Amino acid sequence: MEKFEINILGCGSAVPTMRHGTSAQLVNIHEKLFLVDCGEGTQTQIWKSGIRVTNMNHIFISHAHGDHFFGLVPFVSSLTLMLSRTDDLHLWVPFDLEEPLRHDFQHYCQLSFKLIIHPFDTSRKTLLYEDKEMKVETIPLSHGIPCCGFLFCEKPKLPVLLPDKCRAYGIPQRELGKIKNGAGWMMEDGTVIPNSELTTPSDFMPRRYAYCSDTAYNPQMIPQIEGVNLLYHEATFISADEMLAVKYAHSTAAQAATIARDANVEKLAIGHYSLRYNDEKPLLAEAKTIFPNTEACQEGMTISL
Amino acid sequence: MEKFEINILGCGSAVPTMRHGTSAQLVNIHEKLFLVDCGEGTQTQIWKSGIRVTNMNHIFISHAHGDHFFGLVPFVSSLTLMLSRTDDLHLWVPFDLEEPLRHDFQHYCQLSFKLIIHPFDTSRKTLLYEDKEMKVETIPLSHGIPCCGFLFCEKPKLPVLLPDKCRAYGIPQRELGKIKNGAGWMMEDGTVIPNSELTTPSDFMPRRYAYCSDTAYNPQMIPQIEGVNLLYHEATFISADEMLAVKYAHSTAAQAATIARDANVEKLAIGHYSLRYNDEKPLLAEAKTIFPNTEACQEGMTISL
Repeated sequence: MEKFEINILGCGSAVPTMRHGTSAQLVNIHEKLFLVDCGEGTQTQIWKSGIRVTNMNHIFISHAHGDHFFGLVPFVSSLTLMLSRTDDLHLWVPFDLEEPLRHDFQHYCQLSFKLIIHPFDTSRKTLLYEDKEMKVETIPLSHGIPCCGFLFCEKPKLPVLLPDKCRAYGIPQRELGKIKNGAGWMMEDGTVIPNSELTTPSDFMPRRYAYCSDTAYNPQMIPQIEGVNLLYHEATFISADEMLAVKYAHSTAAQAATIARDANVEKLAIGHYSLRYNDEKPLLAEAKTIFPNTEACQEGMTISL
Repeated sequence: MEKFEINILGCGSAVPTMRHGTSAQLVNIHEKLFLVDCGEGTQTQIWKSGIRVTNMNHIFISHAHGDHFFGLVPFVSSLTLMLSRTDDLHLWVPFDLEEPLRHDFQHYCQLSFKLIIHPFDTSRKTLLYEDKEMKVETIPLSHGIPCCGFLFCEKPKLPVLLPDKCRAYGIPQRELGKIKNGAGWMMEDGTVIPNSELTTPSDFMPRRYAYCSDTAYNPQMIPQIEGVNLLYHEATFISADEMLAVKYAHSTAAQAATIARDANVEKLAIGHYSLRYNDEKPLLAEAKTIFPNTEACQEGMTISL
């Protein structure tokens, strides 16, 4: 199966500490890399992971809180200083981050490549990136300031040709591409053989990954993330501190698990842990009582879909 | 002896790697802390060091290259988010960094304390900070963009009272402060006892620390740093790569040691190592052939004066 994996670079909140970096993940889909958020120190985590970022052409930032982007200008700057990058780099940011980041790149960096900044509206579902194999769209979140998550989706594969049938009807090699793309076949006598007789649907199940950080408990996201293979959902607090979650527009571990359960996702990964906890086990235990297939993220962890 | 020590938080150059952080040091003089430069990840190094920064009220930035200040906005932001600081914080930056940093603090932080930014001219020696015990002045450097080092100086101590003499001349307790500050004593008959008869000079030798990074070989600094107890001087390259040192306005280890020798300093500490070296031993060896009392900095190292 082609690669679809998430590398956790940072899963703490607010401030990088000795226990956790701030938010950052690398998403690898068929060897195309996407960086999601970029807290301070993200580049060091990337060097540590050993992952080569030459094939990383898109960076997505969820919102304008420093723990999600303070590592961005330094990292992009290092792509010149250390890697002498020349390929275009696409940066997708909420509208309110566009001007400040343009300012910083202008004042602090002399890049060896073209940086293309795409601002977007976080308040509605928007298709940001698409190619033949996959797409990325925003997931509107509820966090007090413009903020969204990202949904990474593989596309369905084309149907599989039935070689015996194609041969039996005398379809020449050069026409098989059209059949694969859905066409029927017209015989010399004018009879049309429907595509369904010449192909069988691919048994490939497109996979989906939803990144949802930061957000208050926000069941509006459920229809969009229904049935995803993996949901990363912030779980900043335990339920005993739910008042803080409400105050700061974050979620508890129980709320993250409730979203996962109600959206029938396959697996939940929690992160964005508050500084106040020295141990994430209680957060994990709390989530598991509601949604057993939950994992607590740690830096350096890879999750495969 | 009162504390005068340097804690090395980062001594690499250009980009933080797994081997080195970028430039940052904490200078502790009599338990007053001063942060010098603040590359990305400086705050994590500080938390790791266990040093409490409640008594750090001044930050000095040498120049506008990212490896010397990319950690500044994140760190200052964390003083609110993690430490709920309320004391004023003074930030000393070259003129060309003032506007961009004001922009960033305005857009990215809501601070719980007053941040006072003091821009300065790097092209001439300037007194930045002074109190009863010490002072900090700039050291003009040569680096292609406005750039300076910092000279931390203890002040001489007041002379020591000779108690027998003071008693013999009947000087009352309440007058001793004046004598300590240099006054003579007038007897009832009008005779003046000179201060030199009532006191003896303190045997305290004021210590000085010079931080010089980044700079090309720059002997103009020598008169200002003559005889300092410790010189931190960048040594980005080995002599074999001197062409690169010239090109990028940096120094070789031999040049750093030559400055140390010609300025008759007590001890040299080198740092700001280029990414191209996986081992600093050749840099240290090269410097020691010219100036034997050289140390190669590493993160976490403390140097006491």
